[in-house]
Amino acid sequence: MMKPGRLEEGDASKIPVPAGSNKGISVMDLILRLVGVTGTLGAAIAMGTNEQTLPFFTRFVRFDAQYDDFRSFRLFVVVNAIVCAYFVLTIPLSIVHIMRSVARGTRILLIILDTVMLALLTAGASAAASIVYLAHNGNSSTNWLPVCQQYGDFCQGASGSLIGSFGAIVVFILVILLGAVALSRQSKLRL
Amino acid sequence: MMKPGRLEEGDASKIPVPAGSNKGISVMDLILRLVGVTGTLGAAIAMGTNEQTLPFFTRFVRFDAQYDDFRSFRLFVVVNAIVCAYFVLTIPLSIVHIMRSVARGTRILLIILDTVMLALLTAGASAAASIVYLAHNGNSSTNWLPVCQQYGDFCQGASGSLIGSFGAIVVFILVILLGAVALSRQSKLRL
Repeated sequence: MMKPGRLEEGDASKIPVPAGSNKGISVMDLILRLVGVTGTLGAAIAMGTNEQTLPFFTRFVRFDAQYDDFRSFRLFVVVNAIVCAYFVLTIPLSIVHIMRSVARGTRILLIILDTVMLALLTAGASAAASIVYLAHNGNSSTNWLPVCQQYGDFCQGASGSLIGSFGAIVVFILVILLGAVALSRQSKLRL
Repeated sequence: MMKPGRLEEGDASKIPVPAGSNKGISVMDLILRLVGVTGTLGAAIAMGTNEQTLPFFTRFVRFDAQYDDFRSFRLFVVVNAIVCAYFVLTIPLSIVHIMRSVARGTRILLIILDTVMLALLTAGASAAASIVYLAHNGNSSTNWLPVCQQYGDFCQGASGSLIGSFGAIVVFILVILLGAVALSRQSKLRL
């Protein structure tokens, strides 16, 4: 479709890009990434320091629970730490996008990496969530008793640290969406 | 950058797109989606029919295990069924992409939907995986005993059905990657 008065394509990099079009998206991207850093860092610390020792003990057994006892919780801490580092590493790239809103290759790269990290974080968070659910409710057919009556603080700590992680999942979905919107706007600007 | 002998942009839709450039990607996309249908359907059926009754029983208790007893397994079945339906629904779109390799909006839409579904499937699969791990190994600090000694067939069925689901996760990652590659190639063709 040829519209009248259309710019030639070679000028695309010369014309002033409409202010605020992709800049606003990039700023929001940066803010979301900062939220993601906070969420995953909080989740990793909250789970990593989660520990409870019961005030009674027998001669042979001391009753304590810590996140290390559950593989899924250990995975959770590791995954959150990785994703937190990833967020920190992508913040410079996000700042570059604010200044150069025509960047294309790095946006696509960021979308792909975000997707991989989203999958990783979702895996860690939901594995931990299923254990937290089991700790709260137990399972009668396998005779796994709910342990939250005894380890109340431990359970609360574990449940709380899930919040930060699921917040970061929402951040990832928004960030990927923003990236796709920015890409499709760019192509409209150029075509 | 202006290169000599460059086509004007208005001709972009008229020039014959180099054959096989995005067509090959779209064909691979279709094949991967078919693999995904098989994987998730197999996983949902294998888990949904998973049940074991032990050959002994007392007067009051019959020992049986089925996927319904675990919330995470129920989630697993539901999620796999949803993702399987999603794969089936996107196959026509994938065929359209084979015929019209310049389609742009539908590709972006597909990438976003794929990302959401990837997150959903990863959540379901890893929640189930953490329960399967617990069933195999138990947890000493909460006194959850491993139940796979008694319910051997049940455990094997559950473990097996995870394979289909994790296969579909790989399919999603590949499909999203292919979509991003196709999009970036399109923009190169047009610029």
